[in-house]
Amino acid sequence: MTELSVRFDSTTEPVAVPAGTLLVDAARLVGVDIQQPCGGQGRCGRCAVRVASGNVRRRSSLRLSQEDLAAGYALACQTVVEGDVSIEVPPPEQIERRLTTVHAAPEAVVPAGYDPAMVQTVRQVVLELPHPSMDDQTDDWGRLTTALRVATGIDRLDCSLEQIQTLGPLLRRSHWDVAVTFEEVGPEHGRLIAVAPASEPLGSWGLAIDVGTTTVTVWLVDLQTGRVVRQASEYNRQVMKGEDVISRIIYSTRGEGRQELRSLVLETINQLVDRVCGRGDVKPEVVVKAVVSGNSTMMHLLLGIPAESIRLQPFITAINHPPALRAAEVGLLMHPDGAVDVLPGVAGYVGADISAGVLAAGFHESDETTLFIDVGTNGEMVLGSSDWLVTCACSAGPAFEGAGVEHGMRADTGAIEEVWIDAGTYEPSCRVIGGTAPRGICGSGLIALIAEMFLTGVLDKGGHFNRDLETNRIRQGEHGLEYVVVWGGETEAGHDIVVTTVDVDNLLRAKAAIFAGFIVLADRVGVPLEAVQRVLIGGSFGKYINVEKAIDIGLLPDMPWDHFDFLGNTSVMGAYLALIDRSARDRIAEIASHMTYIELSADNSFYDAFTSALFLPHTDLTRFPSVAAALT
Amino acid sequence: MTELSVRFDSTTEPVAVPAGTLLVDAARLVGVDIQQPCGGQGRCGRCAVRVASGNVRRRSSLRLSQEDLAAGYALACQTVVEGDVSIEVPPPEQIERRLTTVHAAPEAVVPAGYDPAMVQTVRQVVLELPHPSMDDQTDDWGRLTTALRVATGIDRLDCSLEQIQTLGPLLRRSHWDVAVTFEEVGPEHGRLIAVAPASEPLGSWGLAIDVGTTTVTVWLVDLQTGRVVRQASEYNRQVMKGEDVISRIIYSTRGEGRQELRSLVLETINQLVDRVCGRGDVKPEVVVKAVVSGNSTMMHLLLGIPAESIRLQPFITAINHPPALRAAEVGLLMHPDGAVDVLPGVAGYVGADISAGVLAAGFHESDETTLFIDVGTNGEMVLGSSDWLVTCACSAGPAFEGAGVEHGMRADTGAIEEVWIDAGTYEPSCRVIGGTAPRGICGSGLIALIAEMFLTGVLDKGGHFNRDLETNRIRQGEHGLEYVVVWGGETEAGHDIVVTTVDVDNLLRAKAAIFAGFIVLADRVGVPLEAVQRVLIGGSFGKYINVEKAIDIGLLPDMPWDHFDFLGNTSVMGAYLALIDRSARDRIAEIASHMTYIELSADNSFYDAFTSALFLPHTDLTRFPSVAAALT
Repeated sequence: MTELSVRFDSTTEPVAVPAGTLLVDAARLVGVDIQQPCGGQGRCGRCAVRVASGNVRRRSSLRLSQEDLAAGYALACQTVVEGDVSIEVPPPEQIERRLTTVHAAPEAVVPAGYDPAMVQTVRQVVLELPHPSMDDQTDDWGRLTTALRVATGIDRLDCSLEQIQTLGPLLRRSHWDVAVTFEEVGPEHGRLIAVAPASEPLGSWGLAIDVGTTTVTVWLVDLQTGRVVRQASEYNRQVMKGEDVISRIIYSTRGEGRQELRSLVLETINQLVDRVCGRGDVKPEVVVKAVVSGNSTMMHLLLGIPAESIRLQPFITAINHPPALRAAEVGLLMHPDGAVDVLPGVAGYVGADISAGVLAAGFHESDETTLFIDVGTNGEMVLGSSDWLVTCACSAGPAFEGAGVEHGMRADTGAIEEVWIDAGTYEPSCRVIGGTAPRGICGSGLIALIAEMFLTGVLDKGGHFNRDLETNRIRQGEHGLEYVVVWGGETEAGHDIVVTTVDVDNLLRAKAAIFAGFIVLADRVGVPLEAVQRVLIGGSFGKYINVEKAIDIGLLPDMPWDHFDFLGNTSVMGAYLALIDRSARDRIAEIASHMTYIELSADNSFYDAFTSALFLPHTDLTRFPSVAAALT
Repeated sequence: MTELSVRFDSTTEPVAVPAGTLLVDAARLVGVDIQQPCGGQGRCGRCAVRVASGNVRRRSSLRLSQEDLAAGYALACQTVVEGDVSIEVPPPEQIERRLTTVHAAPEAVVPAGYDPAMVQTVRQVVLELPHPSMDDQTDDWGRLTTALRVATGIDRLDCSLEQIQTLGPLLRRSHWDVAVTFEEVGPEHGRLIAVAPASEPLGSWGLAIDVGTTTVTVWLVDLQTGRVVRQASEYNRQVMKGEDVISRIIYSTRGEGRQELRSLVLETINQLVDRVCGRGDVKPEVVVKAVVSGNSTMMHLLLGIPAESIRLQPFITAINHPPALRAAEVGLLMHPDGAVDVLPGVAGYVGADISAGVLAAGFHESDETTLFIDVGTNGEMVLGSSDWLVTCACSAGPAFEGAGVEHGMRADTGAIEEVWIDAGTYEPSCRVIGGTAPRGICGSGLIALIAEMFLTGVLDKGGHFNRDLETNRIRQGEHGLEYVVVWGGETEAGHDIVVTTVDVDNLLRAKAAIFAGFIVLADRVGVPLEAVQRVLIGGSFGKYINVEKAIDIGLLPDMPWDHFDFLGNTSVMGAYLALIDRSARDRIAEIASHMTYIELSADNSFYDAFTSALFLPHTDLTRFPSVAAALT
């Protein structure tokens, strides 16, 4: 048999192998390490190498694009040598970047030409007031408001009694030289937030807050520059009183439940505020505005408004467009007279998070037919373009946020965010956020895990474990069968990280609800699947999502990958935009007012669509041709 | 000597008397009782009778007008018979009405064509809301505000978080049939006060409140009819912490003084509210609006606003036009979301009581040059017409309100409100409010008393007691000389009611300050005394004032009596008008904005004018020709 020479760029000596040798085997001979997380099945694409010269035969090129092939890429586990070849092994990061179906959520970008005086609703001006005298006995308040009118055109300034009570001594202590912070609430109409000596002006900081059912996110924004300075997320402490909005509402109606839930979410937010403020680095008193987004139930519970009518047919909110509020009445840790803007929602199950999300997703500027899905504890979706918007909501549960899952966690350091399973050994390999020892599995990791378990036969299409496979990773656990993702010896806490049959069921129901919502919404407005030009995905998945695996499990429709964009937490992004740009705020209100809400519970086809979607990827495999291809 | 026949209409038989007999003596012979409170001096005019036929000679007709004389009136103590005469003796009430220089302050009159929906700023409408359904999932607040907009044109409705918190359960309990009470705060702009089931609508009651330095007055108004239903006045409990605004301000700057004074005035007001509400007859929760008037210091202290700058040069208030407030933040006993409108003032010493008083006095409709004096603890005055207004203030002290005087009291049942002293015996006769045993002396009684004491020689022009008169009523008291007005045996409490040398000094200073202010104000704008066509007098004098006696002591300028009008408490009257008529409220704001304030403390001539006025009636007797005439 002809010996052929294979040279890897990372070694000095070529290796001689027979024709037909797999590139991975040749590499192993000279000690070149090529990743094969899928166990050499040609599924994961992680073993991609570039054939610099020489002949090879590609048995499969599943993960490679036409451009990749033209550039000489080949899957090392699926490619055999047919002549002397020279092979370049890209560093693992490069493969990861090029090959993975990972989309990074965009960072908050300060709009070009940002001018705090023009776009914010909170403004700060320095006023040098004329000193009072026997010839000018104008009252303190008149002196202040006249100077403000001259400087800003604000003709009417609302204020609280407390502010008037402190004004006189403050003006005198400031020697009539003051920095005035106010909120513009209408044309030539303001509301006073604070008066401070010009020599010690109040800072100008804002908060964008997303109150999710499971996760609360707070961004600290420097309103002078528009920059997001710090971000923090934490589980909503209300979780201990119920995992979804329905159980929260039920809890809120019992005894002191409403007050209790209000306190819990305020504790969560305020601890996050304390954290983003660097525990005193930025004093909370200089935070003068907060924009709050979240689903309607969360907004009601945050504001102490009874939410029971949201739960009961016909599912009515107390208020979709809350009025402008003061921080002190809401209970937020910031300047007590700071402005709190709770963004407007659409209906009981389509809240401010969606109005804000639609803005953040850029719908209002798009002619393309777009599907926007916000996957949090509820799955809300919006279909439309700049001209029209329809929306619906379905209950997904908190699984995608890593909650309600045995070893679930948020997409934070130590979370398993990507998994591959060797189809021969059923051994998994994982990518962990921060590269540390794993602590648990986040939403994207769970999606990958279910997809891999399904594709390798650990799970059947009904989501049942195959107990006949030869692996000790499938075992009887406390709550039925489970799959060990990481052995205790390799984990941070020292015990096994598993995914249980209960977890799988939760995830199946969650993905089925979302997919069914999508199907029903499209059917109702008569827009065929193929007409959707973009799929924008917001929510608390974490930063990276594997589209292919989300399609594999039937969570997302089977479309070309470039149709998808992952936008991250569009709710907090929308709140951020409303915080720094008053026209964005106005657009959110317009979006909330003009979106057409479709009540799924009044739609009989939803339950059918849900039941059909309770399989991997779906009872109707023709809806998922790429998954069908991968299975064969 | 010729016997002449005198017939009195109240007797059947004539009496025969010699020519030259006084009518009072003829009357005494047949047992006809003719009052002579001044002891037959021809001063008081109470003995006026009508000569129906026959000849008499009038020695003096001091109290009688030309019309009176033409009608045949004569003073019985000054008129002698010169032929057979027939005499009509009018009932005492009729004399009182015709002769006394008493002017009753007008009662609050509901404006003609009063329509609560058109003139009030607080409105109540019944709304039958469409029930929510799966086809109409409008939020509760949207449902309410849409119906309100259709019914009233109110496009924007402000509300508190608490109101939203209670809305949902209330709408459902009301079966979507509700009575909405709101305040109109601008064009198409309202503020929600209350939502109640249409079957149990909130009443619609209002309060007009005058917070005087010494006296607080509360009127309860039925806003449906505009009628004043009950009135009550009480001393401001702050009095115990200082009698005038200066001592109050000083007290307020010490320790918890500001909070203490705020609590004291709130206690006073709220107890009066409780009283006018009939201790539960009208529930305070159905009181939905209050309009508050008072001087600037009182308004600051009521609202807990530091007032120290009012005391210190250049005498600056913190705020002249307070914003719209909620009852709960002010602390008033009424619906917590009720509207509290604290009326606008002009300067530190010309407050809302004057802006409101000018409106109540009707200045804004008058072409006559008018002097308006509000005599409370401070004496504020306004000179002008519908075209121009100038104003100043001087400190009078609380004597005219019966406070700071040994046996002073408010003009209430048991108060001596009119006094005559017999020039021969120095025995007084008194009129007591309610006709009961006397309890003390009110402001008008004190003025009459000082005037009578001066005219009968009990006091000299310097205000010193004449200890040489033959009467036991002048005696050495605990604090110097005093005059016994009523012996203990005739009083309610059983001890003597006296006026002391200290009381006289207080009253002299009070009247001197007011008269000096008037002189300086007129001089400054170059309007001679004679050019003043009307003198309007507001304040807490009580209901009746004797113009002649006020002139006698030099409190009021010596003008024909018909130039004077006593308007009573113009401050509370202005508050009442603002409560029931939004255009009146607007006019008060205009008045406050356009009045020119003259600072007397910056005027050297004030002290001279004050010193000259510290005499009875004045150092310059030519300013008081009618008093000079009475003295001779």
